[in-house]
Amino acid sequence: MKTMISVEQQAIAAKKAAKTLSLLSENEKNEALNTLADHIEKNVKRILEANEADLHKGREKGFDEAYMDRLALSESRVLELAKGLREVSRLDDPTGDILSEWTLENGLHVQQVRVPLGVIGMIYEARPNVTADAAGLALKSGNAIVLKGGSSSINSNRAIVEVLHEALRETKIPAEAVQFIDSTDRAAAQQLFTMKEHIDVLIPRGGAKLISAVVSNATVPVLETGTGNCHLYIDKEADLDKALKIIVNAKTDRPAVCNAAETLIIHEDWLKENSSAIAEMFAAHSITVHGDEKAAENLPDVIPANEQDWSDEYLSLDIAIKVVSSLDEALEHIERYGTKHSEAIITENKDTAHQFMAIADAAALYHNASTRFTDGSALGFGAEIGISTQKLHARGPMGLPALTTVKYLMHGTGQTR
Amino acid sequence: MKTMISVEQQAIAAKKAAKTLSLLSENEKNEALNTLADHIEKNVKRILEANEADLHKGREKGFDEAYMDRLALSESRVLELAKGLREVSRLDDPTGDILSEWTLENGLHVQQVRVPLGVIGMIYEARPNVTADAAGLALKSGNAIVLKGGSSSINSNRAIVEVLHEALRETKIPAEAVQFIDSTDRAAAQQLFTMKEHIDVLIPRGGAKLISAVVSNATVPVLETGTGNCHLYIDKEADLDKALKIIVNAKTDRPAVCNAAETLIIHEDWLKENSSAIAEMFAAHSITVHGDEKAAENLPDVIPANEQDWSDEYLSLDIAIKVVSSLDEALEHIERYGTKHSEAIITENKDTAHQFMAIADAAALYHNASTRFTDGSALGFGAEIGISTQKLHARGPMGLPALTTVKYLMHGTGQTR
Repeated sequence: MKTMISVEQQAIAAKKAAKTLSLLSENEKNEALNTLADHIEKNVKRILEANEADLHKGREKGFDEAYMDRLALSESRVLELAKGLREVSRLDDPTGDILSEWTLENGLHVQQVRVPLGVIGMIYEARPNVTADAAGLALKSGNAIVLKGGSSSINSNRAIVEVLHEALRETKIPAEAVQFIDSTDRAAAQQLFTMKEHIDVLIPRGGAKLISAVVSNATVPVLETGTGNCHLYIDKEADLDKALKIIVNAKTDRPAVCNAAETLIIHEDWLKENSSAIAEMFAAHSITVHGDEKAAENLPDVIPANEQDWSDEYLSLDIAIKVVSSLDEALEHIERYGTKHSEAIITENKDTAHQFMAIADAAALYHNASTRFTDGSALGFGAEIGISTQKLHARGPMGLPALTTVKYLMHGTGQTR
Repeated sequence: MKTMISVEQQAIAAKKAAKTLSLLSENEKNEALNTLADHIEKNVKRILEANEADLHKGREKGFDEAYMDRLALSESRVLELAKGLREVSRLDDPTGDILSEWTLENGLHVQQVRVPLGVIGMIYEARPNVTADAAGLALKSGNAIVLKGGSSSINSNRAIVEVLHEALRETKIPAEAVQFIDSTDRAAAQQLFTMKEHIDVLIPRGGAKLISAVVSNATVPVLETGTGNCHLYIDKEADLDKALKIIVNAKTDRPAVCNAAETLIIHEDWLKENSSAIAEMFAAHSITVHGDEKAAENLPDVIPANEQDWSDEYLSLDIAIKVVSSLDEALEHIERYGTKHSEAIITENKDTAHQFMAIADAAALYHNASTRFTDGSALGFGAEIGISTQKLHARGPMGLPALTTVKYLMHGTGQTR
């Protein structure tokens, strides 16, 4: 019961702080972000000690290597948090931008102005870096933030927030603009789902399970960030060198991230012609191949693919292969199993590429390039708060403008209708 | 059970039609819209006969006058539907617009392009005009639409859709792009709430109850259109003439619409000085006044206001009066009871107006003008699909761009990361 009351009180305090914050100048916000960075740099040891407590618990619980890696901070990773805050201070502040303005015949002057959303609810899992990164992006765009991290990183998150609070007390931004739900209780997160009065948007960052729990149960609007079941379609007119290079990059550069490729869809004519080159590439990069019957007929060591191979992300050096006889068949497979994140076609035929990009329904569509570019910093947006796989509000990598809304401001001299 | 299967089949058919539609040119869509208008004009009698069946049922059920008015069509109202479709054909098609494009250092070319959302689910109440208006806006922006109207207008809606289908068969747009749920069963509407696979967005149009049922139960993203509990704040430095003119317009021009004013917040100093002018204006326009104690001290015939007077829309010639002693108190009242639709301040003090407009949180904020301008056609957007009172995706009157999303299209020559 104590937690229940306090989560709502925290959200109310965030909303109040958001009002003060929304009236600050860009300079005041930038100075504050640099003060946050200074304090992070001065407190590396303290943050690492807290992280060690999380790592110790994690080892006891027997978390796997990938999970422990997401959980772990190091001196350089903590310094990256400070660097990230300084980078955000240099991004353009989108708030206050006049997106359009005009005057009606009766003299009423209309402006459409970008303003902060208000209070952002951030629900995330292991990675403690989200604590500082999300706070920085929220504050720069004039929003307060309520942070609810995973229980496995609670000590790290708490230490980072303590440092941020100490720093904020030296700035014009009220410390209450960053709220930390200091609880490992799931009910605390669930309370945020329905606090429409105090929270303007929820952003879940983490695995498919977390995201789906938020989307299904929240009445607060959600910015859905995504799982990426990304496909590469190798057309019958694909160039072999480009295909090999792109497959290797999209699959092996960072297999655990959402813009990595999970399924290859290969035109059967092309596969027959290039099966030995493809097989060599898989072997050279230790890629485990799951596939349909036609894949098994043309390639060695193919594990029969089942429904889960088509629908789930591997996030590992596994890949699924679906062999098709037409572009339409490839598009149907993507429509059925894709998560609307990133899809690519490799072909030398521009018309085929155009058709693919017109029909496939995803945030990012690639012709002869790796899906790995679906990323705020790779595209030049600066830091991102996540990659949206939904169609409303923001789609693809979300920078600062995704954390804003608009107001119409109308100045008149007594106009009536 | 039959309905259950058929609603899903209709949504699947809509999704398939949306793909064909999304590849049509602006000209092909415009020609189709004009063909729809032609057919509406040729079938006025048929539509009016169907409407007469709904009106007959409505009279039997004893619906009130305002409701019957929303339900009723006339020759001129049907011809307005055709005129509306022709107007939509003349609006700019937002799809295909390149919102931004740039080339990365490695040569990867990035375009952010506007595309249709896909399939729109429209859930609405009495007004049969929504059937044609919403279909026109959806088709022009390349979207298929699934229409679920209220049971009281089902004959009118069915007749309009029959005419639209006959017309579509003469055009490049597949008739399946307009789906009509021919059922008075609420379960049919509820099925649409969770059809995330086939429906990209739900737009509820109607009363607060309908909208809240959709928002609370849908997992499909919702474009929330709004109830408008709009306030006029009469500051201590308000000009009397402007205040009177704006109050009369915002309250009496069309009391039943969402941008009409429902509550006056009046600074007590101003009220004391201008009470007789205000009282005369109320009497002259047959406005019934509900108010707090201070209002009753300064004005005649004030009915004591309760919580509901502050929180609900009257949609009639009733008005609530809250007397305050500061701008802050006015802003607190708006924050507590406002629906984030439209809020106005009447004052000659620009600083006070600026503060009001910076702090009040609503789609549209007015200084010395009537709230009645929050309307797509009044602001020059052309037809609107509704007025959004949410902060994500679209805020305020929603024209064609609100029915679109974006895709990033990346053209490369083998780029990897």
